[in-house]
Parts: sequence; C-alpha cells; structure tokens
Amino acid sequence: MNYPNWLLQRAHLSSSRMALSYEEQEWSFSEMNSTAQKYAGKLAAFGVERDSRVAILSKSHPEFIFIMYACLHIGCEMVMLNERLSKVELAYQLEDSKSRFVLVDDKLVEKIESPHVITFTSIRSAKPVEFEIQEEWEQGRTISIMYTSGTTGNPKGVRQTAENHFSSSISSALNIGISAEDVWLCVMPLFHISGFSILMRSLVYGMGVRLHDKFDAQQCAKELQKGTVTHMSVVGVTLERILNVLDEHKASVSPNFKTMLAGGGPIPVAYIQRAETYGISVLQTYGMTETSSQTTTLQPADAARKIGSSGKPLFLYQVKIEGAQKPGEAGEIHIRGPQVTPGYIGRHSGLLVQEDGWLHTGDIGYLDDEGFLFVVDRRSDLIVSGGENIYPAEIEKVLLNHPAVREAGVCGKPSEQWGEVPAAYVVLNEEIELDVLLAFCREQLASYKLPKSIKTVESLPRNASNKLLRRELKAWN
Amino acid sequence: MNYPNWLLQRAHLSSSRMALSYEEQEWSFSEMNSTAQKYAGKLAAFGVERDSRVAILSKSHPEFIFIMYACLHIGCEMVMLNERLSKVELAYQLEDSKSRFVLVDDKLVEKIESPHVITFTSIRSAKPVEFEIQEEWEQGRTISIMYTSGTTGNPKGVRQTAENHFSSSISSALNIGISAEDVWLCVMPLFHISGFSILMRSLVYGMGVRLHDKFDAQQCAKELQKGTVTHMSVVGVTLERILNVLDEHKASVSPNFKTMLAGGGPIPVAYIQRAETYGISVLQTYGMTETSSQTTTLQPADAARKIGSSGKPLFLYQVKIEGAQKPGEAGEIHIRGPQVTPGYIGRHSGLLVQEDGWLHTGDIGYLDDEGFLFVVDRRSDLIVSGGENIYPAEIEKVLLNHPAVREAGVCGKPSEQWGEVPAAYVVLNEEIELDVLLAFCREQLASYKLPKSIKTVESLPRNASNKLLRRELKAWN
Repeated sequence: MNYPNWLLQRAHLSSSRMALSYEEQEWSFSEMNSTAQKYAGKLAAFGVERDSRVAILSKSHPEFIFIMYACLHIGCEMVMLNERLSKVELAYQLEDSKSRFVLVDDKLVEKIESPHVITFTSIRSAKPVEFEIQEEWEQGRTISIMYTSGTTGNPKGVRQTAENHFSSSISSALNIGISAEDVWLCVMPLFHISGFSILMRSLVYGMGVRLHDKFDAQQCAKELQKGTVTHMSVVGVTLERILNVLDEHKASVSPNFKTMLAGGGPIPVAYIQRAETYGISVLQTYGMTETSSQTTTLQPADAARKIGSSGKPLFLYQVKIEGAQKPGEAGEIHIRGPQVTPGYIGRHSGLLVQEDGWLHTGDIGYLDDEGFLFVVDRRSDLIVSGGENIYPAEIEKVLLNHPAVREAGVCGKPSEQWGEVPAAYVVLNEEIELDVLLAFCREQLASYKLPKSIKTVESLPRNASNKLLRRELKAWN
Repeated sequence: MNYPNWLLQRAHLSSSRMALSYEEQEWSFSEMNSTAQKYAGKLAAFGVERDSRVAILSKSHPEFIFIMYACLHIGCEMVMLNERLSKVELAYQLEDSKSRFVLVDDKLVEKIESPHVITFTSIRSAKPVEFEIQEEWEQGRTISIMYTSGTTGNPKGVRQTAENHFSSSISSALNIGISAEDVWLCVMPLFHISGFSILMRSLVYGMGVRLHDKFDAQQCAKELQKGTVTHMSVVGVTLERILNVLDEHKASVSPNFKTMLAGGGPIPVAYIQRAETYGISVLQTYGMTETSSQTTTLQPADAARKIGSSGKPLFLYQVKIEGAQKPGEAGEIHIRGPQVTPGYIGRHSGLLVQEDGWLHTGDIGYLDDEGFLFVVDRRSDLIVSGGENIYPAEIEKVLLNHPAVREAGVCGKPSEQWGEVPAAYVVLNEEIELDVLLAFCREQLASYKLPKSIKTVESLPRNASNKLLRRELKAWN
C-alpha cells in the first residue's frame, strides 16, 4: 500500500492546527505545507529530484525542518548528518552514501568539503521552479538514512522507510495515547532518531512540535511550568538537570504535561521517583537507529518494581532472546516488527540486518517471567554518554592509526555528568606525549567521543583467541 | 509483515485493563484472553482449526465475543450472520460461504437448517482439547466475512482482513485520539461492521467495551449521564431517541463522554446541534462493509457549515470522484486505502472490487472546493424521473427539517408518465396536514423532486444497525 503524503494530508485534515513553534513564532500545518512546497521549488532549482540522495547538516531551527519537509515533498532520501562529528567523519558518510547534494546550514559550512554543497542561504535566495510533488509515498520508500557505528568501527548508514517511521509513531500512540492538544517539546537533535521521530509523530498525528535550538534545563523547566507542552523526550542527564532546576525554583509542573519518553540507556529509578513528585510520568525506552526509535517501553507504574528494565515491547513489536530456554536466561536480543530497518546502504548494503524478519541487535539481555526486557549489555560494549552512543571500536581504530600505537582498548568509565565517558588504554611502539595523541584523535573524532583519559599499559586483556576483553578493561578505571 | 496476535498482546501489555463490561460483569484483557483460549479449546474439540470458515449467528452478549475471540486465536475466518435475516437469506449465505461450521446461539437455532450447526450450549459443555494458538496474524489474513446487498440484489460476502481492521482502527484513532481511559458503548449489532469494528478497536487500543444486548435509548442515556462510557456509535434515529430521553429527563451528560460516531446516512444538523447543547460531539461518517467502517468523517466544528457532508477522508485514506473535473461535480465515489477489502468470496469471488487499488463504491457524490465529501446518494436508491436524477436523501433531509417529522423515508414508485416519481413515508411527532408538509417541501425543492405521495406510518423499515432500507419502502407503494 501507499501512504497519502503525510504533510499534504495534515494540511488538508488539520490545516489550522499548530505544526511547529519556535521562540515566538508559530506555523500551522497549512503554513508548514506551503513553506515546505516553496522550499521544494527552491531545491528543485538546484536539480534535487525524486530519489535524490540528499545529505543535510544543520543546527536545530525551523529552516532545517522546512528543508526536510521539502525533501519529503520531492521524494528524496535524506542522509541526516550529525553536526557534532569531525570533518573526517562527515566526509566518510558523504562518500559512503554517495550523496548527490549536501545541504548545509551556513553556520556549519566549514565542516564540509564537497563540490555538492548548497548552503541554506543559497537555497533561501533561489528562485523556485516547478517540481512534481509526491502525492503518495510507498511504504518501503527510504525517508531517512542515519549513520550508526557498530562492532567494526565503520559507521553504517541505516535506511529508515516510511513504514518504519509510521509504525513507530503508531506504536507509540497505542502505548501512550494521542490527543489533538498534544505538543511535543523537542530539544533532541533533529538529525538523531530521537529528534527526527518527533517530527514523524507530528506529521502522522497532526501534533504540534515546540522546538528549542538546544537543550537548556532552565528553558525546559519553564515550558513544563507554563504547560505549553504535553510531552518531551529526554535522556538521563537532561532529565536530572531539569529536575534540579524545578527543585531550585520550588516550581510546579502544569497538569497539561503528560509524559516524558526517556531513551539512551537506563534511567536511575531515583530520577523517576523525583519526577513523579512533580506529576511527571517518565517512560524508559529501549530502541536504536535500526528500529526507528523505541521498541520497548517501561511504564512508570512498573519502574520501582522492575528497576533496570526497559519494559515490554510496543503493540506491533516482538522481542525474543536468542537461545534462552526460560525466563531470566540472557542472550542476544532479537527484535521483529515493521519498525525494523530493511538494511544498510553504501559499503554495508550487503550486510544482513534481519534473519526471518528478526533483527539481531548484538545487545545482550533477558526477559523476566512477566516478559519485561532487561538489557544487560549494549552491543560491543557500547558507551552511552549523555544520550549519545559511542562505540569503543571507532575510537580504537583512530588510536591504532597513529604509528606510535601498537594496541588500543577503549571502555566506558562512570561520569556523574554524562553517565559514562570513554577511557582509552594503549600499548605503545615508541614514546609519545599523550597530548599529541589526543590532538591526533581530535582531528578525526567528534569531541564527545574523545577519550577523557589515555593511559599507557604493558598489555591489554585478551581472551585465548586474542580478542580484546573490554569488560576487563573497566576494572582498570 | 505479521501482527502479533492482538488479544495475546493486549493480555500482555494491558492485562488488568477492562476489556468488556456487560450488565454487572467485567472482564479484564487477561481474563478475556484466558476465556477465549478456553473456548478455543472447546471449538477445537469439534474440529475447528486454522483457516476453517466458521459462520456465527448470535444475539449480542459476552459469549458471542468469547467465541469470536476464540476463533481469532485459532485462526478461523468468521462469517458474521445477521440475526434479522430470514431462514432463506441465511441459508443462501451459508451455502455461498461454504461454512464448515455454524456456531449458533441457542435462542436462534430455529433460524438455521444445516448439518454443521453447533449450538453455544454444546460448545460451552465441550471438553477443551489442545489447539495451536496463532501467535502471529498475517496482514492479509481474513478475519471476518460480512454479507452486503448491492445493486444486483444478491448479497455478496465481503472479506475483511487483519490489515483492513487494523488500519481502520488506527485511522479512527488518528482522527479522534485515544486514551487509556476510553470505553466504547456498543449497542450496534456485533455481526455488523459498526459493532464489530468496536471490538477491533478494543483489541488494537486496549480499550474497554461496554456492551448492551440491544439499543435502548433510556439505558444509553443513563450511561452518558453516569459517565461510564466515553464513545458510542449511533445512527440518526438512535441519536434522536437518546436526545429525546435526555430532554425528557432534563438530564446532563458527564464530561467523561467525548464523541459519538454517526453512520448509516446523513444526520440532520438539528440533531447535531441538540447534541452539542449536551456537550456531545457528533462525528458524521461515511463508510461501508467494503471499507471496514468509516472512510470519511465530518468534525462537529464543520457540521453547521457543511450540512449534509460526510467530511474528509481519514489520515490513511483517499477519496476521488470518477470523472469529476472540478469541485462540485458529482460522480461515482472511489476510495483507496488499507481499509478497502481485497474482494468477495463465494459466487462473487471473481468480481473486481478494486481497480488500481481504487474501490468503486457505486455511490454518487462530490467533493466541494475544500475537499469535503458530499454523498448525494447510494446509487441503488437513485430515482430517475423524466430523465432527471432524484436522490431520496435530499428529499428526506427536507422533510426532517420540519418539526412535525420524526423520521422520513423516500423511494421511487413507478409512473407511466415519468418512469419513476418519489414517494415519501413519514413518522410524525405530532399531527399535521400532509398538504402543509407538501407546501413546506415545495419551498425547498424543485417541483420534479416533490414527493407525489406522502403517507404517515408507525415506523420505517430499518436494518439491524437502524439504517433506512429504502428498497423495502418500495414494497409499500
């Protein structure tokens, strides 16, 4: 089946409802649609057309959304670039995705070296030309591509189809409900599935989005107090900062506010309990780029009873544990459902992401006797730092590229502020200043991925087949 | 893709939430699931198995639902028999559908002559055997088959798949919202799509159903007053009767109550306005058995401005008018979306129901310049008089606008001069000279559309869901 174009449909069905609000400005779905069509005409002037692969690099502001929605109207595949990445990392993604166009926020233009760059300013000043609007979207059409790292250290471009995003939106609605009054506060990056999925829900539900250009605990607390928003997405560290502000101000939260979706790793139950004293319901979720946002969610009512659990699968989804014979047995987490990506692009396009429709996550977990999922270990020792995923292998690869480094091992170490930060251990071929090594990393890695410590050691812990045992590294922290 | 079995999923995700309430009894989703599994074991004892075509004839009560849900667990195709049909009509449907089993409420056993009858009593007293529960449902799996009459007069068995029911539920939710507190009052027959779709929504949303065994305006008004329900489905005549009861009792409606879905033909705007004085929001809908319930819906905010309209398509659906070059031009209504049946069974299985994914409804209508659908008439009721098309609904609407008229039905009757002329039948609120009524019509209708006769009757012929049967009116001419 095909979907009617979501934005056209919302402009038709919920034309005067608020689609986006930013600072003091607001756009209805009707205005959003006509603005997106205008931008689509401008993009068409540069030759952007149906099925064009278009990379976008932008900070969070309304024009980023206008341009994304314009791409939806035209029928492009959007490669969502992470503004925190280094030039080297971005260049890799552009090359791997073979993006024909790179639409760049002027503020970030220094990050990209490509003959295909079109700045937002030049888009804005282009004269629109005729374009063929996509009235219908095929279910399997790729809407977005997001890069995620894996065990190999080479980031993989994950295809997210219209059906992936639709079923994710629907499944969330079947879990937490929907109402015409809902407004979702978006402080998550729009290029990340946590932020992007808010836009998809907006189009599917006809729901308003309140956009902040970045996370600011004071500003968030203000929205909650005023009751201008009903939902928001958080990670542990942002939730805690908001709670601190509410505490400081002895503030109360408007009864309009309904739910927080919390992703990016387990949330301490103390945060959830503190949130409850403000009447805030926090739902912990487990998901990944390959599942277009949440796959399981823990209801607040179960939070204290099921500490550390990520909850149960949403209505359309199934979770099983590879090889587990009975509840409590850990194994690889397998996921099935219409939210699961059909696969990767570029050099990983041959990589099997599903078997019999089951996504092999690489994460380790178990289901308890009531069917609650507990994630024991994220794949390949994933480090979750302030909600961002960091893969040790990616950092190790960079370290190993330096001639002075013979072996490298990276693991997470606890951080009060970020939950976890990366720590590196290296075996050297020759003497080198660790600052020099760090500067070498800085050229190739986003700053949040930089090791917060680098220590020289004689050897690294390895198993019999010489595989690095990152979990043992942690004992050295 | 496959759906996880909806009832299993709800028993897992919303186990303690109310699934069904009837008189003083209640069943949670967990209880409903175990009861359905018990009944499935009993059905299996008779040889009912996956893909069995099972006809069911029952009055509205919980056991009917247990048995339907048992059939879902086993994976049967349910032929939903209408208890108001004659023995001859039922025999036709059993023969056409080649039903292997006929499950019959003991109260209705005289209606069926078939060697395949299994009474509810014998099911109840059977000893359950092992059966294989369907953990997953294919999207294209036939869940229900409902017979509908057409222009031919030969009822056709319409297949309704899991995807049809799912998308119908989802589309309704995207229109009116969903919340964990919702309870839908079901007074529509469960064998009809209007009632059956309430059960499907219940399973998809995890929503409670409050079941009445039949429509009783007093009982409905009581539920609205007490606030025990949040939604209900009505047709024009049942809505009016409920309003009359509320008026009589000078009653108020609980703020818990949210929305009425009104189907089965246009609702007089006066009813909608009366409902609004009670805070009841009435949404007129247009749908049919072939679309598994509503395809378009009119919001109350538009009701006065768009009198007679059936609203706009729901989010996943598209409507177009065959041959129309511009807004306002009437033609056959074509419908596209995942709610459209893949086709008929039995002797009509070869009949093409879709072309390029578009359902040709046979109904006549137009879209206005804002995209609102106006159903001018169901094609089979069209009166052709001296070459002019006359749509009974138009005349009925005028008659209903007169305060003395409670119900009105119009059909064609043979005329030597004109081929056909309109004849009207009215149920009155109070005595009135028919000449006065005719004069009232004359003010609002072209003369060729004036009923050539108006007769007062006690009641009008209606089907189980209270929809006016204009074809039966013709027998009165």
